[in-house]
Amino acid sequence: MTLAKLQANGDGWAMELNSADPDFLARLDALLPDGTLRAPEPRYLEEPRGRFVGQAGAVACPRTVEDVSTVLRAANEARVGVVPLGGGTGLVGGQLMPDGPAPLVVSLERLTAVRATYPEENVLIAEAGATLANVQAAAEAVGRLFPLSLASEGTAQLGGNLASNAGGLNVLRYGNARDLCLGLEAVLPTGEIWNGLTRLRKDNTGYDLKNLLIGAEGTLGVITAASLKLAPRPAVTGVALFVVPSVEAAITLLARARDMVGEGVSAFEIMHAQGFDFLREHLPELRQPFAKPPEWSVLIELGLGQGQSAEAALTGLFAETVTDGVVSDGMIAQSGAQAAALWALRENIPEANRRIGSVSSHDISVPIRRIPDFIPEARAALLAIDHSFRINCFGHLGDGNLHFNVFPAKGRDRADYEALRGAVKDCVHGLVHAYEGSVSAEHGVGRLKVEDLERYGDPTKLAAMRAIKAALDPNGIMNPGAVLRA
Amino acid sequence: MTLAKLQANGDGWAMELNSADPDFLARLDALLPDGTLRAPEPRYLEEPRGRFVGQAGAVACPRTVEDVSTVLRAANEARVGVVPLGGGTGLVGGQLMPDGPAPLVVSLERLTAVRATYPEENVLIAEAGATLANVQAAAEAVGRLFPLSLASEGTAQLGGNLASNAGGLNVLRYGNARDLCLGLEAVLPTGEIWNGLTRLRKDNTGYDLKNLLIGAEGTLGVITAASLKLAPRPAVTGVALFVVPSVEAAITLLARARDMVGEGVSAFEIMHAQGFDFLREHLPELRQPFAKPPEWSVLIELGLGQGQSAEAALTGLFAETVTDGVVSDGMIAQSGAQAAALWALRENIPEANRRIGSVSSHDISVPIRRIPDFIPEARAALLAIDHSFRINCFGHLGDGNLHFNVFPAKGRDRADYEALRGAVKDCVHGLVHAYEGSVSAEHGVGRLKVEDLERYGDPTKLAAMRAIKAALDPNGIMNPGAVLRA
Repeated sequence: MTLAKLQANGDGWAMELNSADPDFLARLDALLPDGTLRAPEPRYLEEPRGRFVGQAGAVACPRTVEDVSTVLRAANEARVGVVPLGGGTGLVGGQLMPDGPAPLVVSLERLTAVRATYPEENVLIAEAGATLANVQAAAEAVGRLFPLSLASEGTAQLGGNLASNAGGLNVLRYGNARDLCLGLEAVLPTGEIWNGLTRLRKDNTGYDLKNLLIGAEGTLGVITAASLKLAPRPAVTGVALFVVPSVEAAITLLARARDMVGEGVSAFEIMHAQGFDFLREHLPELRQPFAKPPEWSVLIELGLGQGQSAEAALTGLFAETVTDGVVSDGMIAQSGAQAAALWALRENIPEANRRIGSVSSHDISVPIRRIPDFIPEARAALLAIDHSFRINCFGHLGDGNLHFNVFPAKGRDRADYEALRGAVKDCVHGLVHAYEGSVSAEHGVGRLKVEDLERYGDPTKLAAMRAIKAALDPNGIMNPGAVLRA
Repeated sequence: MTLAKLQANGDGWAMELNSADPDFLARLDALLPDGTLRAPEPRYLEEPRGRFVGQAGAVACPRTVEDVSTVLRAANEARVGVVPLGGGTGLVGGQLMPDGPAPLVVSLERLTAVRATYPEENVLIAEAGATLANVQAAAEAVGRLFPLSLASEGTAQLGGNLASNAGGLNVLRYGNARDLCLGLEAVLPTGEIWNGLTRLRKDNTGYDLKNLLIGAEGTLGVITAASLKLAPRPAVTGVALFVVPSVEAAITLLARARDMVGEGVSAFEIMHAQGFDFLREHLPELRQPFAKPPEWSVLIELGLGQGQSAEAALTGLFAETVTDGVVSDGMIAQSGAQAAALWALRENIPEANRRIGSVSSHDISVPIRRIPDFIPEARAALLAIDHSFRINCFGHLGDGNLHFNVFPAKGRDRADYEALRGAVKDCVHGLVHAYEGSVSAEHGVGRLKVEDLERYGDPTKLAAMRAIKAALDPNGIMNPGAVLRA
């Protein structure tokens, strides 16, 4: 069978699943330590934006990789769907299954150990249920940095971060979750355990199963532990907020900063005036640096080595760029408290957004040099749909990754715009596709973007994905309906 | 069928192939532009160490990705094996098929264009047949760095570098070929073209097909072009050769250097006295810096940003480390010519090795902190096999990647040791495995290490690899016998 045929008829993996019914659960319970199977409390079936509610026959909370293997082997034999669950902070519905035969949720919450640290090797091995914040803390305890950092890091778990190839604030310098992972321990859909927790930086022995599981959003197996790359902690850091006259200027500023300090640019986040207005509306306790928010501003963090001065570098960067109009104003934090205050602005934008409630949120990327054209074109197209929209565009400009989120007019509610949501999403995603961009830069496909993937994805890649899914998960039990249509 | 069953019987892909016979070639020729199919001249069937000789019914030299697609579609229908060929510099026989039904070689030598450069985005798009040196030059022409660098870069082609996930001298700082690739254009075994030449840094829409093809050594398709990450060129560079009292001290030196300049350490290469002796024997025209070569020495290259001094950093590093005995002697290049002369020592070690002819060469990696134990244990075990062996251990210490090569006594020939070669390889690879290492750190599996992969690889990973191979290449035409047994 050719890939094209497989794509056309879905043959080989779109099979009927059974519910995790009392009979199955009783059999499974007998195979597992007491207390592993639990009732599906509501907290296992919720997601942050409240758009989906999941369902489940039960929740399994394994303590060991062997228990995960037992669960998957039994579910595979019984053709019962399995939904792996980390911290539940994903924004695309990958962690819950709202319909279909009731699945078994497998929560990694009891696999939380940091198994080992190797500071001389810049390696840390942790289990999938460890929160990202705990992994960061374990790295700090041995004088190292685990650079993955995102708003939900106190709750998000490592396994979910890897399954969704999480991004966040430091991708520019250190890469996303994929780039920070050396190896995995995982259970494949038929229950086999893969012992791939290597500490090696280089190992060219066969296909890259690690990167196949990373970003597969639990559809090809359950990640149970990972060996992670640590980085040296920068000797000095510096934070500044620079006002730029345009998005184009912000891109130039990034290039100048990199010409000056190379990899020393740790973060480069763009913010629009709308974000500051939202903060003022809903988080008035945050002190704002500008009487009138500038249309565009950029938060820069540098992390440099011994004997360097981040403040001097930022001062030099400002002096050079203000001269030729690349920046028009700015402030350089003079203390850790000031740096934290500047970061608090950026980090609280998602919370302000959440309180307002978006009509539609978009996690997009566009080739960097096309962003200055993309933003005004997308804005104009959205305002043509409804001129009252408020658009908050912010994010990881250095990665070409924008959160391009559309909000109700002040005093109105997202429910008022329910009928427009589809048109808004299609407008943004269609334009992103025309600009050679991605409709999911860092949040993944989950269940929310399955149709987008079918519409915008490369057909050969999709066919290959379906063939791989059928090969590794012949009964289609793993996270049914996520990424690929079940 | 479970993965375990698939592994046990090889069902699904181990099929009979046909030879690329005159009938098939005549039919294929009619589908392709004139001059695409050529006679299999000897240069298409050789490899650098002269250990294997290939065979082929013909060589196809497509000019376009569509022609590659035509070739693979026809070969798949006729069940004729296809061996993709880049520069032919691989050291594990992945580029030639010494036996079995005569395959069609597909040489990428006419797909050589640098299609586009995007310096503001640090992206370059090139075709698979471009030499690595040409890709580096195209990056330099727009003021950027393509950091992949290895001894054979004048001949090696980008497609082969990606198919084998090449490593080389700058992995420590910039990663290996995998880490430097943003996207691919490739033809899958059934002839479908995947258009995946993204310039995006972040794109979480589906399985990571890119990383699956990278490192698959041509067994899952033919890479025809790639979009590559460029880096800023360091503003200043500095090179030093430091003498260290032990391998342990070399590891400490690397940690100190990173504490001082962070990512600024571009290369960190260890060399043993044996390497200097080999250079003196076979390349006496190279001026050596020491009257008597030190047992262990390290070549360090720093690349730093504006306003920094690499020479000052190296001087500071030397002053700090000589005080507490981490280094015992050293020299810091005072000019580009001196830097080149130091690099010439390291870069000519493979050539000196080649002229002597190894009994057995090993491209291994070991967790970094275990290297100081591994080296003496491996040396003792080898000398117990034959006390006359000369062992040249050198390479990318910062990556944990050593070239641990075993040579005849002076005045003798590798043929004299032919009977011992198997024992030597088993000795080194067995010990590497016991040390949680890899028997192929950067050269790949090819045909030379298929048995090693079967012996030392994780069984679950191997079963998953076979399932993926069967799913994407159902007729088993792609590079038969490489990586996985045909």
